[in-house]
Amino acid sequence: MNILPSIPFSSLEWTPLPLLATATEAESSSLIIAAVLLSLVVIYFASKLGGEICVRINLPPVLGELVGGVIIGVSVLHLLVFPEGGASASDSMLIQFLLATSELTPEAASSVFATSSEVISVLSELGVVILLLEIGIESDLKELIRVGPQAAIVAVVGVVAPFATGTAGLIYFFNVAAIPAIFAGAALTATSIGITAKVLAEIGRLSSKEGQIIIGAAVLDDILGIVVLAVVASLVKTGKIEIFNVVYLIISAGAFLIGAIVIGRFLSPYFVKLVNEMKTRGQLLLAGLIFAFILSYIAQVIQLEAILGSFTAGLVLAETEKRSELADQVIPVADIFVPIFFVCVGAKTDLSVLNPAIPSNREGLIIAAFLIVVAIVGKVITGFTVFGQPDINRLAIGVGMIPRGEVGLVFAGVGSASGALSPSTDAAIIMMVILTTFLAPPLLRVVFKEPKVTLEEQSN
Amino acid sequence: MNILPSIPFSSLEWTPLPLLATATEAESSSLIIAAVLLSLVVIYFASKLGGEICVRINLPPVLGELVGGVIIGVSVLHLLVFPEGGASASDSMLIQFLLATSELTPEAASSVFATSSEVISVLSELGVVILLLEIGIESDLKELIRVGPQAAIVAVVGVVAPFATGTAGLIYFFNVAAIPAIFAGAALTATSIGITAKVLAEIGRLSSKEGQIIIGAAVLDDILGIVVLAVVASLVKTGKIEIFNVVYLIISAGAFLIGAIVIGRFLSPYFVKLVNEMKTRGQLLLAGLIFAFILSYIAQVIQLEAILGSFTAGLVLAETEKRSELADQVIPVADIFVPIFFVCVGAKTDLSVLNPAIPSNREGLIIAAFLIVVAIVGKVITGFTVFGQPDINRLAIGVGMIPRGEVGLVFAGVGSASGALSPSTDAAIIMMVILTTFLAPPLLRVVFKEPKVTLEEQSN
Repeated sequence: MNILPSIPFSSLEWTPLPLLATATEAESSSLIIAAVLLSLVVIYFASKLGGEICVRINLPPVLGELVGGVIIGVSVLHLLVFPEGGASASDSMLIQFLLATSELTPEAASSVFATSSEVISVLSELGVVILLLEIGIESDLKELIRVGPQAAIVAVVGVVAPFATGTAGLIYFFNVAAIPAIFAGAALTATSIGITAKVLAEIGRLSSKEGQIIIGAAVLDDILGIVVLAVVASLVKTGKIEIFNVVYLIISAGAFLIGAIVIGRFLSPYFVKLVNEMKTRGQLLLAGLIFAFILSYIAQVIQLEAILGSFTAGLVLAETEKRSELADQVIPVADIFVPIFFVCVGAKTDLSVLNPAIPSNREGLIIAAFLIVVAIVGKVITGFTVFGQPDINRLAIGVGMIPRGEVGLVFAGVGSASGALSPSTDAAIIMMVILTTFLAPPLLRVVFKEPKVTLEEQSN
Repeated sequence: MNILPSIPFSSLEWTPLPLLATATEAESSSLIIAAVLLSLVVIYFASKLGGEICVRINLPPVLGELVGGVIIGVSVLHLLVFPEGGASASDSMLIQFLLATSELTPEAASSVFATSSEVISVLSELGVVILLLEIGIESDLKELIRVGPQAAIVAVVGVVAPFATGTAGLIYFFNVAAIPAIFAGAALTATSIGITAKVLAEIGRLSSKEGQIIIGAAVLDDILGIVVLAVVASLVKTGKIEIFNVVYLIISAGAFLIGAIVIGRFLSPYFVKLVNEMKTRGQLLLAGLIFAFILSYIAQVIQLEAILGSFTAGLVLAETEKRSELADQVIPVADIFVPIFFVCVGAKTDLSVLNPAIPSNREGLIIAAFLIVVAIVGKVITGFTVFGQPDINRLAIGVGMIPRGEVGLVFAGVGSASGALSPSTDAAIIMMVILTTFLAPPLLRVVFKEPKVTLEEQSN
């Protein structure tokens, strides 16, 4: 610094003219970073505030993240809005805040808004990819085989019944077109492993026979749900339903899943050996991510979804001796990426379409009520399909399968992003996820009489 | 699925026409994800391959990440190229691969290229923000005070000498304009904590008196380097050097750093209490990131750089009882973000400007040679400024300060992004970082005679 005053001023005058274009680019690039940092602060704050409130009233945190997103999003505060939802820079309170506090100019505002929104959307999609990787790592093919036929029948009935009833009902009673009806029906299929496992742990029933069947069915359910999502999303892409297409997609989804698992299990000893040979930091996590991202890319290229690739990668990696080490390292990564997804799903949901004061909304509300009834009844009946277990609490199994979560929201997100779902159907699905998640914990307490020592009591 | 054949085909024909615009958007959005996933696979592969090769020939992995980036980037393979470097979609081998393997159309290629490049650039900038957060958490204000005056004088001389000599030499010998000269001089200042600490650990000298002084000086050096970067980057923004500006920036950098630390230390008990009260997953990591991103945003708004905010946040968080827990959780996050930064810095470096066969490049090569000499001599002399330690190995201290790394590369990245550095000066800085990093490990072995038991021998 001390040399500066001794240099004649003439040589210090720096003409920015030839660098004007790049300087403006750098300016706007640093403002994009500022907008992304601020968006992440708002997203993380909403997710933690919502999650912490939900935990305190005995609801799953993921519900709070979703509601937090609804509050900062297009429905309430307009802090986080997206161009594909029809918002412009002037609708975004966050861009208004940047205009007030930074050197952002009104002219640059729309390009900064467009680019930072695109970055947040991509981060949110990476969030689902990483969430499904984590779910894959936490799933256990062997456990699934052990809890066996009971879990399988609960899972299959719990997928087919709400899917068939929901889709058929929407088409015949509500005159919904086939594709959106199938999408909404498919969104009713998958029980949330995370929410169910958490609720069971909270009431001390995770290791009961009913708990084991619920978890096993929920795991299988998740796989079925993802296959259904892949099939349905591909149907949206190709534009019409052809039996050949359906068969092709089921076969390619099955072949991808089975092929990746078989080839993956064959290659996994070499993967472990390679990772053990590596000496640089983060070798296991990055090798795992390379594997997951390659499978995600292949899944997308063969007309399936990226998340099916990362889920399969998780299943394969869970079979190696590196499972727990990898799970430990994926957790912080999931912690920073996954909330972006849930909050964005909430933020993109326009709840005003469910306002009963507006006559045109009433059909959406009726659809939501129908979906909620189908979602609950379609899962409760599954408990009564369990065979060979005379003393089992069949109602508890069915109720345990009620909460929808991640996968249902993935359907809502993919469906609304692809344009397959109308805003009212999309909002109805979100309402269904919120309500089933809200209802399950109190209902489970009722159907499991005489609760055992709960996790909370143990830890207090 | 079983209900599908029973539905009359007429009702199943789904007209995609009204959804055409959104369907195309969704199509291109899923291709953007595919391009980002593929870019990350290439980046992670290059970083790990380069890192592993370097580790095996006793060089720091970060050097391998940089060289890996050079190989996949604009200099060699063109897998990862950026629009701001003048590349178009047809120059990107990755986009060509997408065109060949996915349903990407040539018409959509340039928008997918532009958006996915922007996303990777933002991820790379988030990488520096998180790297500096991690360096901040690993730094220790108290340790710095303990190693005391010796470390301080080594740090100050090691910053002032190469900065003054480099800047003055470039202006007077090479007729470089003031701003680029100051930028290049500033890039010579900061020793890499990571590289130095790693090399010292490898030769078993981390806990020697010389090692302690080197680490202490490198920590202080890093802080000085960041202040210098903030000052220099702000000078680039305002376009000319005014003493008032310099004083204002030094004061605001100092005030921000000291203010954030003082206020942060006052608030940190409440931070710890809040985090202890929280019950949802990732509470510490997300609370830490919210704090770091808010400080990054403030730093950027007051004309400093985002990285100064995250570094300060790291220093403050390191003073709390949560330090080691937070460090454990930041590591996997840094592992996935930081390589994106180093690989992108390498990928954006056009080494062809250093080809001596082209006459116009020769000045750049001479500048590189000059910078390397200044970088080495400017640090080696610092050892001889240590006072009150008659038996100390002064040469070893100076040599230990030679390797430049993260911060030097940050200068190169920020400088080339802001347009302040010409391609040849930018490449010369990268050459300087590569060479000082290459030279330090063998030189350190020479100046520390009779090496003690090394880490590698211990672990074998």
